[in-house]
Amino acid sequence: MASVRGFLHPKSATGRSSLIPSPPWHYSGDLLTVEYRTDPARVAELLPEPLAPAPDDPGAVAIIWADWQSCSEQAEELLDPVRAQYKECFVVVRCSFAGRTYSRCVYIWVDKDFAIARGLHQGYPKKLGSIHQTRPHPYGKGAPRIAAGGRFGATLAAADRRLAEAVVTLREPSESNGFVNGHPMAHHRFLPSIEPGEPPALDELVESGAAGFEAGQAWAGDAELRLFDSPTEELALLEPDEIIGAYHRQVGVAWNGGRRLA
Amino acid sequence: MASVRGFLHPKSATGRSSLIPSPPWHYSGDLLTVEYRTDPARVAELLPEPLAPAPDDPGAVAIIWADWQSCSEQAEELLDPVRAQYKECFVVVRCSFAGRTYSRCVYIWVDKDFAIARGLHQGYPKKLGSIHQTRPHPYGKGAPRIAAGGRFGATLAAADRRLAEAVVTLREPSESNGFVNGHPMAHHRFLPSIEPGEPPALDELVESGAAGFEAGQAWAGDAELRLFDSPTEELALLEPDEIIGAYHRQVGVAWNGGRRLA
Amino acid sequence: MASVRGFLHPKSATGRSSLIPSPPWHYSGDLLTVEYRTDPARVAELLPEPLAPAPDDPGAVAIIWADWQSCSEQAEELLDPVRAQYKECFVVVRCSFAGRTYSRCVYIWVDKDFAIARGLHQGYPKKLGSIHQTRPHPYGKGAPRIAAGGRFGATLAAADRRLAEAVVTLREPSESNGFVNGHPMAHHRFLPSIEPGEPPALDELVESGAAGFEAGQAWAGDAELRLFDSPTEELALLEPDEIIGAYHRQVGVAWNGGRRLA
Amino acid sequence: MASVRGFLHPKSATGRSSLIPSPPWHYSGDLLTVEYRTDPARVAELLPEPLAPAPDDPGAVAIIWADWQSCSEQAEELLDPVRAQYKECFVVVRCSFAGRTYSRCVYIWVDKDFAIARGLHQGYPKKLGSIHQTRPHPYGKGAPRIAAGGRFGATLAAADRRLAEAVVTLREPSESNGFVNGHPMAHHRFLPSIEPGEPPALDELVESGAAGFEAGQAWAGDAELRLFDSPTEELALLEPDEIIGAYHRQVGVAWNGGRRLA
Repeated sequence: MASVRGFLHPKSATGRSSLIPSPPWHYSGDLLTVEYRTDPARVAELLPEPLAPAPDDPGAVAIIWADWQSCSEQAEELLDPVRAQYKECFVVVRCSFAGRTYSRCVYIWVDKDFAIARGLHQGYPKKLGSIHQTRPHPYGKGAPRIAAGGRFGATLAAADRRLAEAVVTLREPSESNGFVNGHPMAHHRFLPSIEPGEPPALDELVESGAAGFEAGQAWAGDAELRLFDSPTEELALLEPDEIIGAYHRQVGVAWNGGRRLA
Repeated sequence: MASVRGFLHPKSATGRSSLIPSPPWHYSGDLLTVEYRTDPARVAELLPEPLAPAPDDPGAVAIIWADWQSCSEQAEELLDPVRAQYKECFVVVRCSFAGRTYSRCVYIWVDKDFAIARGLHQGYPKKLGSIHQTRPHPYGKGAPRIAAGGRFGATLAAADRRLAEAVVTLREPSESNGFVNGHPMAHHRFLPSIEPGEPPALDELVESGAAGFEAGQAWAGDAELRLFDSPTEELALLEPDEIIGAYHRQVGVAWNGGRRLA
Repeated sequence: MASVRGFLHPKSATGRSSLIPSPPWHYSGDLLTVEYRTDPARVAELLPEPLAPAPDDPGAVAIIWADWQSCSEQAEELLDPVRAQYKECFVVVRCSFAGRTYSRCVYIWVDKDFAIARGLHQGYPKKLGSIHQTRPHPYGKGAPRIAAGGRFGATLAAADRRLAEAVVTLREPSESNGFVNGHPMAHHRFLPSIEPGEPPALDELVESGAAGFEAGQAWAGDAELRLFDSPTEELALLEPDEIIGAYHRQVGVAWNGGRRLA
Repeated sequence: MASVRGFLHPKSATGRSSLIPSPPWHYSGDLLTVEYRTDPARVAELLPEPLAPAPDDPGAVAIIWADWQSCSEQAEELLDPVRAQYKECFVVVRCSFAGRTYSRCVYIWVDKDFAIARGLHQGYPKKLGSIHQTRPHPYGKGAPRIAAGGRFGATLAAADRRLAEAVVTLREPSESNGFVNGHPMAHHRFLPSIEPGEPPALDELVESGAAGFEAGQAWAGDAELRLFDSPTEELALLEPDEIIGAYHRQVGVAWNGGRRLA
């Protein structure tokens, strides 16, 4: 009998068909972040046990747009960029587990299948969406500069409905890019049993973080944020009561696995 | 602490955000099937232990295009059809396990995230693709009829490359819609460990089949089939040596879970 | 010097590159129509001179979803269906010119470039959109039947915003498929001068209609219709005051040119 | 009777619905250019009278990928970037008219409807395509730097078929960004008569060029280029016999109309 290879499905004799190669995975891109406070009860109800709300500022939320180019260690995707570029919008809250504070992505939309597959491994609850964010460019009137007064828009849609839109106006260089997404991620990986009524086939809590990080100057700014309702989404329940801050930063990140927490 | 609900991620207090609702799932659509023989070694190398090649005709392959509309038990997706319609192209072989013959999908491309998610549960190794098949229609010159001489084209592309194309010309009514996809499906559900080098978090063999089925008259026809190479796909290794048959059939199917085999 | 060939751009030595072939063009598809009354002033302001409002029921509007498969005389597109299938949603009013009543499309969204190009020739003011309508199917719970009680949803989005959604519930067979889209079309074909401030390079009024038509039984039904605002669209200004009727019909149509009116 | 407003269709009482606003139009983006020589007869046959081949190097071709963000004078599109961002791949040759050398776009694919509409005005023969080019980024391993050794891939597909792919490796700063696309553009604007057999409704030769331009350092590099055949495209007839050069440059451009040549 044969063995089959591949980091993920579909497996084959060579492993070449796998939807994604094995980590490490490398990312270069721009992050546009809006941090705000919502009703802490809305955050708490998204945290399954054994997670608890973060001890301080438990209603803090970050909604982050990212315009990525990514690749595996061999980096061949970079020369066939349809396989390297994707965009995402994700919503992060904080939580507490075993005395430590974690970040946790509660909603996320991406626009490529390889990004969905990575999320499956990392525990990001990914759906497909249509994501756009203004790109900075050094020349012409078709783009803002990364400088005071630079204005960046960002939008999210899924299933032909707009779900979120933000406008961030850069104000000044900043020491941070926000605090909500600054901890290791605590995510669940879950798959129901194929047999109705049986316990899940997989239900585990995992931790992971960046295996490498470099970044340019972060900029802080002012933000407007609007969330819209949809029959299949609950993002709008995380209603913004107060904007904490907004940020733009160019980053390079590597990811290379994590560990099981529970 | 909270509990969260939902058949799949993202989980929430209500379960409304889940990428897919719980089964049963209902499907109405048209199947265009081409069955052919390839080198049995190419099929065998895609069957991980404990699966073995089917005892008879072990090089038989079915490539199937399906143009689906689907919904959950409440059927509300049917009134918001962006959430109900999807297309897929999938490749099925047969295998043997514990003395029984199973069908097994070795490659599959779909064009919606909810279809990817259902595949995750059912063990279909889904990627995103761009799938098209000619639709029959009773009026006008813009479509074939489901009748002798009706010609149907079908194509598959992924990552901006064409991977497969077929043309099927209907010849006569048929008692069957082919034999390769006619058994219960034997699929693996797999997720690597979050910890590099550790055994998989999930690696199980599951069986499932239709929980309900109705169909119109099947038609048999003649087929041309071309498969194309790609850096990330191995479909073209299943080279067609001999066409067995081709079929068109309109079907209604229900799916409602399966059972664990190993 | 060379001559170049092709019905439309890009022209080449052979004409094979043309975005669309020359007419006749053939269409097979399903139409879902909602007719309603809006403020007649909203219709009148969309009718440039020399057009005038229709003498009777001048506030009548039809919003029509169509799920098409189309081809040229040689029909080769039907075997490469990515080049044959498209969907559209269009809004039709009536107007009067030289003592005759015409239909006129004031807004239309399609999802393929060949459909945009045909509209350029025919005077349809096409934009790209994302259009979906429920498909009938004879088998399974994933689709309504074309029968009393059959429910069909239809949606329109553009630039990641939902612009319209309708639900039609079939009630009974009908002698007509509505009246607003039942006249020859009176459309403008327009292109500004390349020189700022100069008169248009083209500004003509043309008439066209079907060169061939066959259809199945029309069904009448009840409808809900919602229109949504957008920064770049004015569809929602045609606010529905009263639903006139709703219809479903399968049709085959041919189009083969028209004539210049003014 | 009403007048209607708008730079292009659909026209309305306010002009807000127009697919594109009036020029000037502003662009910020990155250009990846491969210049090569093909059989001059293949270029000549694409030049309709009164155009003649360029007197020197008449087989020179530039294939250019561009990753744009664009806006009108008010720039509101930049805050709703789904309306500002698009990509294109276009093929430029040179020609001669009235003793002067012009550039001329013979094939072009874009991925947004507003870009199609601008092309209609400017005489670019636009189709929809799927276009990707590697983006430079200053951080991480997910992107090349704009520096010696930086490698950029670029691909073009349409109708689910890959049409072109290039890889450019930067070598050194360059004084130019190539010469084929360096002249004013000479384009035809064409629309057939609505009446079969009649002369075109519009068939004019127009000239236009940039109304504003700024740019960063151009880089020259080495290129590989592959063109692929398709039933509906003739790009592959412009077969590369010899690579002339390859370039990367970040530019800001404005466009504000042109003039009629013939």
